[in-house]
Parts: sequence; C-alpha cells; structure tokens
Amino acid sequence: MTTIIAVTAHDVRFPTSLSADGSDAMNKDGDYSAAYVVIHTDDPTISGYGFTFTIGRGNDLCVEAARQRGIPLVGRTVEELVGDLGATYRTMQGDSQLRWLGPEKGVVHLATAAVMNAVWDLAARVAGKPLWRLLAEMSPEQLVDATDLSYLSDALTREEAVAILTEKQSGRASRIAVLEANGGYPCYTTSAGWLGYSDEKLRRLLQEAVDEGYRHFKVKVGANKADDVRRLRIARDVIGWDADLMIDANQVWDVPEAIEWMKSLAEFKPLWIEEPTSPDDILGHAAIRRAVAPIGVATGEHGMNRVLFKQMFQAEAIDFCQLDSARLASINEIVGVYLMAWKFGVPVCPHAGGVGLCELVQHLSIFDYVCVSGTLENRVTEFVDHLHEHFVEPCIVANGSYVIPTAPGYSAEMWAESVEEYSYPNGEYWMRAAHPLAAEIAV
Amino acid sequence: MTTIIAVTAHDVRFPTSLSADGSDAMNKDGDYSAAYVVIHTDDPTISGYGFTFTIGRGNDLCVEAARQRGIPLVGRTVEELVGDLGATYRTMQGDSQLRWLGPEKGVVHLATAAVMNAVWDLAARVAGKPLWRLLAEMSPEQLVDATDLSYLSDALTREEAVAILTEKQSGRASRIAVLEANGGYPCYTTSAGWLGYSDEKLRRLLQEAVDEGYRHFKVKVGANKADDVRRLRIARDVIGWDADLMIDANQVWDVPEAIEWMKSLAEFKPLWIEEPTSPDDILGHAAIRRAVAPIGVATGEHGMNRVLFKQMFQAEAIDFCQLDSARLASINEIVGVYLMAWKFGVPVCPHAGGVGLCELVQHLSIFDYVCVSGTLENRVTEFVDHLHEHFVEPCIVANGSYVIPTAPGYSAEMWAESVEEYSYPNGEYWMRAAHPLAAEIAV
Repeated sequence: MTTIIAVTAHDVRFPTSLSADGSDAMNKDGDYSAAYVVIHTDDPTISGYGFTFTIGRGNDLCVEAARQRGIPLVGRTVEELVGDLGATYRTMQGDSQLRWLGPEKGVVHLATAAVMNAVWDLAARVAGKPLWRLLAEMSPEQLVDATDLSYLSDALTREEAVAILTEKQSGRASRIAVLEANGGYPCYTTSAGWLGYSDEKLRRLLQEAVDEGYRHFKVKVGANKADDVRRLRIARDVIGWDADLMIDANQVWDVPEAIEWMKSLAEFKPLWIEEPTSPDDILGHAAIRRAVAPIGVATGEHGMNRVLFKQMFQAEAIDFCQLDSARLASINEIVGVYLMAWKFGVPVCPHAGGVGLCELVQHLSIFDYVCVSGTLENRVTEFVDHLHEHFVEPCIVANGSYVIPTAPGYSAEMWAESVEEYSYPNGEYWMRAAHPLAAEIAV
Repeated sequence: MTTIIAVTAHDVRFPTSLSADGSDAMNKDGDYSAAYVVIHTDDPTISGYGFTFTIGRGNDLCVEAARQRGIPLVGRTVEELVGDLGATYRTMQGDSQLRWLGPEKGVVHLATAAVMNAVWDLAARVAGKPLWRLLAEMSPEQLVDATDLSYLSDALTREEAVAILTEKQSGRASRIAVLEANGGYPCYTTSAGWLGYSDEKLRRLLQEAVDEGYRHFKVKVGANKADDVRRLRIARDVIGWDADLMIDANQVWDVPEAIEWMKSLAEFKPLWIEEPTSPDDILGHAAIRRAVAPIGVATGEHGMNRVLFKQMFQAEAIDFCQLDSARLASINEIVGVYLMAWKFGVPVCPHAGGVGLCELVQHLSIFDYVCVSGTLENRVTEFVDHLHEHFVEPCIVANGSYVIPTAPGYSAEMWAESVEEYSYPNGEYWMRAAHPLAAEIAV
C-alpha cells in the first residue's frame, strides 16, 4: 500500500506578456500560468502531477483552492484513490461549502481540474501507461463509473453512455494502429496569428507553419475590422485557399455585432468563427450559427462545465466543441462531454496552448478517436508552440500531428527547476524582474 | 476631495451549521459567512461597506479576490468613483487576467459583487440617502450609464432600457408613498422550513409565522419523497390553502427526476418549485416548466451573471426570477436583469437570507417597484430571520413586510465587534471553538 503524504500546490507564472505571445482581442497581456499540483506519496518513486491554466493575476486563488481540495486526500492510499476514480472525484466535488462558490464553475472548479488531473496522472503512472492507453484499456462500464453523469440524463443516460463505448470497443486496437501508422493525431497551429503580432511577423510565421506541413491555421480577430480584413488577406495569401483557416474573436462581440462583423470576414471562407460572444451564451451561439452558416461556430475553452456543453448540443449552437482539459473537472467530466458530443454529432477539437494544455489534450484526442468517435473527420486539435521546454515529457509535433505519447502518465510533470525559477512572486525570475539584485534572495 | 486610503477584506464566518439553520437537500451544514469589504477614506466619517455571501470553506478565496479587486481603488478619490459608477465597475471587471478565472462567474465575480456593493454603499452614504432612494433619484440615462449591457443587446438594447425607465419616471414619487402607506414591501419567510428541522419544529415555526402575519411560506424538499409529502402536509395543515406555499429543492434533481418527483408534490399546490436542477441549465428549467405547469419554476440564487438570466428569459424557462444581490456583480449588473425581467414579463422575487442578503434586497425590491415594474403583483421578497443582529442598520420586518429603510447607504455595515469576534480563523469565537483556552489569544 502506498500512502499520500502531501498535496502541494504551486503558483508558476511565465512572462508571456513581454512578447505578446497569446495576445487576442480580449486578453492583451496574459502571463501564462499554472496552478500546479503535486501529489506526494511515501514511495519517492510514485507521484502525480496536474494543473489548471490561468493567465496571471488570480493564479494564487486557484493554487489556494487546489490546496484546499487536496487536503482530504492526505492519509489515503493510492490504491484506494485510483481504484475508484469516480468516488475520488465525487468526494472532492461533494464539498458543499466549496460548491457554493460555483457551483461547478470558476476558481473552485479550476481547482478540481488541477487536483483531479494530478490524480489521473498518478493513476496512469501507477499503471505504467500513458493516460490515453489507461482509458483505452478500461471497460465501458469502468469508464462510465468514473464519469460524472449528474444533470445529464435528459441528454445522455448511463445506458446510452455504455452503449456508445461498447459499440467502439472491438475496434480499439486497430484504431491505435492507424494513429501510429499515420504518425499521430492531426493538429493545427495558433502560434502564427496572435493579435499583437505585426503583419510581417504574421506572414513569416504562417509561411514557416506551411513549410512545416500544417494544413490548418488560426488567426485572432475582433479588435478592428479593417485590421482583420488585412490580416486575413495576408493569411489566405500565404496558406492558399485549400488549407483551413480558423478565426477567433475571444468573446468581444454581442450577438448582433458578431453576425454583422462576420459579414465582412466571410469572403475569407473561415472554417469556423471561435468564441464570437460570451462563452455562457448558448442561445446566442445558436443564433449566430444560424446567421453565419456555412461558416461554423466553435467555442468551449471557457465552457465552464458539462451542463453548459449539454445545452450547446441540445440547442444545436456549435459546429465544433473546444472543451478545455484544465477548465472542465478532468477526465471525470470530460468523458461525459465527449459522449454527448458524439451522440449529437458535434466533432470535438479541444482547446490547447497556454501552459501544458497541449501535453494534456493529445491524450484526450487519442481517447476520442480510439474509444468514442472512431473517426478523424472534421477533427483537428490545437497546437501552440510555447513553453513546452518546461515539461519533462513535452508533446512532440511532427508533420502537423501530435506524435502518440508513450511515457506513463498524463504528460503533466514540469521540471522542478522551472517550477522553482518561475514561482510567483518569490522565484528567481520574478525576483529579478522586480529588482536586478533581488534574484540572489529568491526562495 | 476625499481619497480612498485602503480597501480591506475580512473573512467573517458564523457557526450556523450547529443548529441546522440554512440546511437543505444540497447544503447540509453551511456556516453562513461574509467576505466583507470596507472602503476606508482619509475622512474618518466616510466609509463604504459591502460583502458577498458564502457558506463557509472557501470564504477566504473570496476575501483574497476582493482584496485584489480593491487594490486599484486605493489613491483614487471618492468623487471620481461615485461620479461615474459605470466606469468604476468596467475598470474592475476589465482586468483580463482575473476575468480568465470566470469569466464573470465564481469567486472572481463574487469578489466584484463584494467590492462594488461597498462602492454603491459609499455612493449612497455620500449622497446621504438610502441606496433605493439614490437609485430612484437618478435619471433613466444615469441609471443606464451605470448598467452593464454588454452581451445583452439581442434581448435589451440601450434604447429599450432607457424607455422602460422613462415610462415609469413620472410615477416614482407616488409609488414611494404607496409603499410607505402599506408599511413596506411584502416578504415571505423561509425560516420555518429548513430540511434539518424536526416535524415539531417545522409545525411550531410555521404557526409562529402565521401568527406574525405572513401569507407566504417556503419549505425545503428533495432529499426523500416520503419526508417531503409528510412535511408539506404539515405545512398546509398549519397555513391553510389560501396562503402561498413555495418549495425549494436546491439543485438536487436531474431534469427527468424533477418532473417525476413533482408529480408526488403537486397535490400541495405549491406556488413554485425553486432550484429544481442545476442553476446553469436554462433548457432544463424550460423543460421542467412546461411539464409541471401550473406550478411555477423559480431559480436565480446561483444565477451566475446577466447572460444566464438573459437566456432564462429568452427561453421562457422561469416564472419567478430570484436574482442574488451578492452573486451578481452589484447594482451595475442587477439593474440590467431587472430591466430584462420586466421586458419579458417575469416577476423578480430576489433571493435573501444568508448573512445580510435581506439587508441588501429590500433596496432592490423597492427600486423595482418604484423605477421598473411599478407593480407588486406576483412579487414577494424572501426574508430569513438569522444574523440580523450583526448589522448596524438591520432590516426591519413587520406584518410580513420589509419596512422602508431610511438610513444612508446599502444597509451593509456590520458591527466592528461582530467582524472581530467571528473573524476566521483567529477571531475569539473560532479560537474558543478550536480550544476553550484559545479565546484568550484571539487576535
């Protein structure tokens, strides 16, 4: 038996605002950050790593919430936690006092994501498998037992959930072989199109992405219509008209404004408009979708929980579901969203980027193909080429695909040196940023 | 000119779980708490007080988030803050790094509520008026300038907002006179019906409420169907069939379960079923409403923001809107919800109880009657008789009505002694609770 002796939470922030990496119409100066959780056991070779993602200020709130979520795990055994991952999740979410602060949204939900991501990482490490394979080797009943189906039964019953997974069970091994033969799971790049980049930088980075083999490209829009038109013209000029171009407004429009603005951008034939309005506005997305067709509507990186996604599907509000691996409450909530998406015929193209989200979503997309959807049609997973150097087993992208990860776990472990240097506010980087001489007293 | 010199945030918790006050099917052991904010100025006679409400653990997260929200106010003048309350709000909400943690929901939104409630309290104190009167003396344009209409334009344009307020402007004075002549704004009581109370206590408290002049009574349901039937029989036995009986499930059901369960309770002819399912489930509430009519559907105490309420109205999902004065981002967000509710024909019966929510909502209900709806029809405001002794100007309820408050401000100031004694974890109450001898070292 292995006992959990501590759950630590760490405030790790990277100064991405200095280079406008990640800049968009809503978020001009994010410092990509992780509320990073380590589950320590009495066996020094066994730990679990997880995180949620934020863009700077307030990361400390998620860290403290994750610390509180982790307290009840201390003293329990690893065998007990990973032996019933559904119960582990339900106990954590069942704290009614913390639940009041959401419920199931915002800081306390991000904290569940961080801690449960670490629990799933731990489970996969103990099993000696990458997380996607741990999931692919669970029976339909085991997967559903671990899935939070509460509030979903009007859209997905337990019986339907088991049936979807059972139907795909026999083909799992052959689909894993297909992915391995194909060189991985297809992705698209957002690295070229941040709003704060100059036209020259946009053109250069898009050309580099074309040269690297990408066929899908995303560009940020929404701050100024004339700028958008000019930048999308550059994009089509570089990538041509056969490649897929996605655009992303990061929630800056009201519903009528989104519909009106998209008339000016339709000539560039985007595959989707992403986050055209408030991420909470199910009916608004449905209205926009009806108005801008055949341009698709995509959202989900701020989709707060499974109940939001259920309604997005019921209302036929979106063409692409972009769930977030560190905003939804880990695998326990994510599997239910994948199952509903399949039932309602909506492809899942998960959000990534930030810090470590690419490391996580590669496992989700493989799981989707192997266990749920069985298809790659209309599916492509985001990739952003920032900050991977801080991860012990960074994702590997080649020829526009995520190479199938093989190391045990959820690929969530960061280098201890990175955690230390970028710890906020007392890590060496931030001490030096505050005053050059302060680096020497970093703790 | 008066300058803001500090914004302090305080973790105040009351041990309500000891007596099962506030217990329901979802929240069995809440310790009613306030993340309490004080805006201090260089004039010791001028301060602002506000809070958000939680039920215990995690209140510290709201306190810290409120502290961060308050930092940019320090050094600004009171005249500047209260001279453009819309700009003050937009600047606070515009912090894109904190916004990521919602957006506009959960801990960071509760923190905006706490700080902006203090700003509005400050504005009313400086004006020497109770908040409801400050609002009633603003022009339609001034009110709309202070209101957050973002993401609402497909349901409520600025022009419509001004028109609704303008239509009611001429009758404001006469409606104030009506309320004063009537002895205040009508309320209902929840104090009798907490789920953790015995049948005997339920019967006794209901009888006391009848004797005090109440005509509306709320009882908690949802944990056990046989218990619900027995308790509602007691309730009708005591209050009769002419009084209004409301029931509240506090989110414990899935959508089909809510519909099924309500069949067993329909014989008691409840006016509404409150929180039958997830507060995020707009389409679910609409489905329940269609199925349980003529029983009304009510929700809103966990309605996270104006976008959620917009959709509740658009989808015809609710019969009663129970917005929360400390979960929505203060008057700036609340006015927009009142205006939409009026446009869509949904009465607002605000949620109260907790700590200090009754003190706040009396101002909102008066504002609604005087400036927006102009009617009391189908409107009744919650009252719970707990913890009022901690407020400097507690609400006064007599003959089933909130007596119109006259003191300047938003009635949000707590006694300094209460804040000190119940500060968590180092106040005298909590120190003594941890160990009898520790009370002496409370700080």
